[in-house]
Amino acid sequence: MDNKQKIDSLLKHKVSWLEDSGPDDDIAISSRIRLARNIKGTPFPIAASPEQLNNTRGAIQMAVEKSNCLGTSALCFEMDKLSRWEKELLLERRLVSNEFIARDGGAALIVKRNESAGIMINEEDHIRMQALSPGFQLEEVWKNISRIDSLLEKHLPFAYDEKLGYLTSCPTNVGTGMRASVMLHLPGLVLSGQINAAIQGITKLGLAVRGIFGEGSDNQGSLFQVSNQSTLGESEQQIMERLCGVIKQLISHEKNARLTLVEKNQYFLLDHVGRAYGILRHAYVLSSEEALNSLSDIRIGVDMGMFSTVDLPTVNELFLTIHPAHLQKFAGKELNAEERDIFRAAMVRDRLKNLKNS
Amino acid sequence: MDNKQKIDSLLKHKVSWLEDSGPDDDIAISSRIRLARNIKGTPFPIAASPEQLNNTRGAIQMAVEKSNCLGTSALCFEMDKLSRWEKELLLERRLVSNEFIARDGGAALIVKRNESAGIMINEEDHIRMQALSPGFQLEEVWKNISRIDSLLEKHLPFAYDEKLGYLTSCPTNVGTGMRASVMLHLPGLVLSGQINAAIQGITKLGLAVRGIFGEGSDNQGSLFQVSNQSTLGESEQQIMERLCGVIKQLISHEKNARLTLVEKNQYFLLDHVGRAYGILRHAYVLSSEEALNSLSDIRIGVDMGMFSTVDLPTVNELFLTIHPAHLQKFAGKELNAEERDIFRAAMVRDRLKNLKNS
Repeated sequence: MDNKQKIDSLLKHKVSWLEDSGPDDDIAISSRIRLARNIKGTPFPIAASPEQLNNTRGAIQMAVEKSNCLGTSALCFEMDKLSRWEKELLLERRLVSNEFIARDGGAALIVKRNESAGIMINEEDHIRMQALSPGFQLEEVWKNISRIDSLLEKHLPFAYDEKLGYLTSCPTNVGTGMRASVMLHLPGLVLSGQINAAIQGITKLGLAVRGIFGEGSDNQGSLFQVSNQSTLGESEQQIMERLCGVIKQLISHEKNARLTLVEKNQYFLLDHVGRAYGILRHAYVLSSEEALNSLSDIRIGVDMGMFSTVDLPTVNELFLTIHPAHLQKFAGKELNAEERDIFRAAMVRDRLKNLKNS
Repeated sequence: MDNKQKIDSLLKHKVSWLEDSGPDDDIAISSRIRLARNIKGTPFPIAASPEQLNNTRGAIQMAVEKSNCLGTSALCFEMDKLSRWEKELLLERRLVSNEFIARDGGAALIVKRNESAGIMINEEDHIRMQALSPGFQLEEVWKNISRIDSLLEKHLPFAYDEKLGYLTSCPTNVGTGMRASVMLHLPGLVLSGQINAAIQGITKLGLAVRGIFGEGSDNQGSLFQVSNQSTLGESEQQIMERLCGVIKQLISHEKNARLTLVEKNQYFLLDHVGRAYGILRHAYVLSSEEALNSLSDIRIGVDMGMFSTVDLPTVNELFLTIHPAHLQKFAGKELNAEERDIFRAAMVRDRLKNLKNS
């Protein structure tokens, strides 16, 4: 299979974390855990020669294959063989990091066909493995990633220190090497002006809040990733318990905020959602930011029962496909920003055609 | 018939100048001429006693009746017997002036059932008569108003000076006492940024440009009234010829601007119209200004053939009925501003239900 065929294969299959349903998925989009691992006695990618990077990649690819930790239908992408837009597409699908797509020789991604798990080779660390599930279910995700971690460890000698834990390229990951996060959709807190207080509270508890595409992306579409900051001094279970406690509270706050809006500001909310729907259904020029924000508003309308015929997966899928690399893939050619805004508007109008404003 | 029944009668009948079709009505909404007349030997309203005002009103009412200049089904409203909202409703229907609804004893309106002509008694002058027709047809309107003027003159001695012409309360009306105006819908010139230059040009030619509700109302909904400034030193025919020449040019400029937009900025225009439609069809809170502006955008969309099932009268009628007094009349009760915005949105959503964005 060449890269084009592999990308087509990803697009053809359902994205489990986005299109399947999961616990609390009216508010929690997805749960994710990633683990950072490195191979003993091998220089970190930043300090490695091209030859060393290639050797590391070969060793990890072989271990993934032998351990069968990502299943027999896993797809492997070597970064130096991908076009700029193919890399961007993987980024939009949350399979690779911003930092990773800037890398070249020796960098590779291996991903399960349903995108529920993947491994970046030679990112900042030799191995960055992640597992993703729909809704709020970190325990389930932890089971999945632990299984992959254990299978791989049988074939690769991980750099591990009895006192510190797993050793990593950047000291902020030393210890568990784990970052667990939940992507939350919090329009109720945003619309009722409670979001800043909520974020401040979370930050004080030692957790991080980021936008949809990680650090630097602001709160587009009322989407927030909440994750642990520290990896040292606590066990994985302790980190997850703390994170889950906060997420539960946030979900409860968001539910209350939505109820209050419905009860006290019904018309404000109806208007907000109605206008978003009107724009998505009838605009002819649509930026990705406006599309994301309007889809976010539609999502709360779906939750409130304002739409009779739409399911969340349709809206969730658009959260992914409105982005530039996906648009160009569907258009079958490179588009400039202006052309993308026109193509995006046409795609959204078409996809929402069957979504009726009840 | 009491006042409520008279108002209901107006609302039940088609408004000729708004709902009938007329020449160039894709751009010209309506043509209007008003004449100021005063009765010889009687003090102007501003200087008259309550008794004199009442006597003047009686004399004019009788002359209107005897001359049958407004037809047998004409309706008469005495201002001091109308509620605030009934007065506002007449203002929204362009049957009375802002100044007139502030008046009280002695002020009365007599109007033809189809609203194509009316007479304000004891406004600034004893008589302010107007005739209105749909589209751009000042000649036709001139015929109508002249007929009314001649019929009345047979029963009332108008104050007239051989040198100056008709005498009026304010010197700016002395002479012909005539103001002819055409209401134009100029979204093409507005969207393409040419409107300010056009207005400057018109003003230099000694004509006035005002918003939809006369002086002080800015260019809401891209609607402009172009009228003559001076009433002295030219005959009615000369004034009208000059005005018609300018209007013809403006209509031609507007047509060109629309064509250029369609040719060079098709998606900008489609987007503009589509968003306006989306908001009108799906908003739950709608101010009159936003409604007016969005209807204005729909109107150009209708002209461009973007809507398959709508006729201009539906949109034109909304230009009238979105205003506060009409809304309250339909609601059957007084509404505060917030309630009006909700009621307006519901009415517009409903009226545009059958208007399909093709």
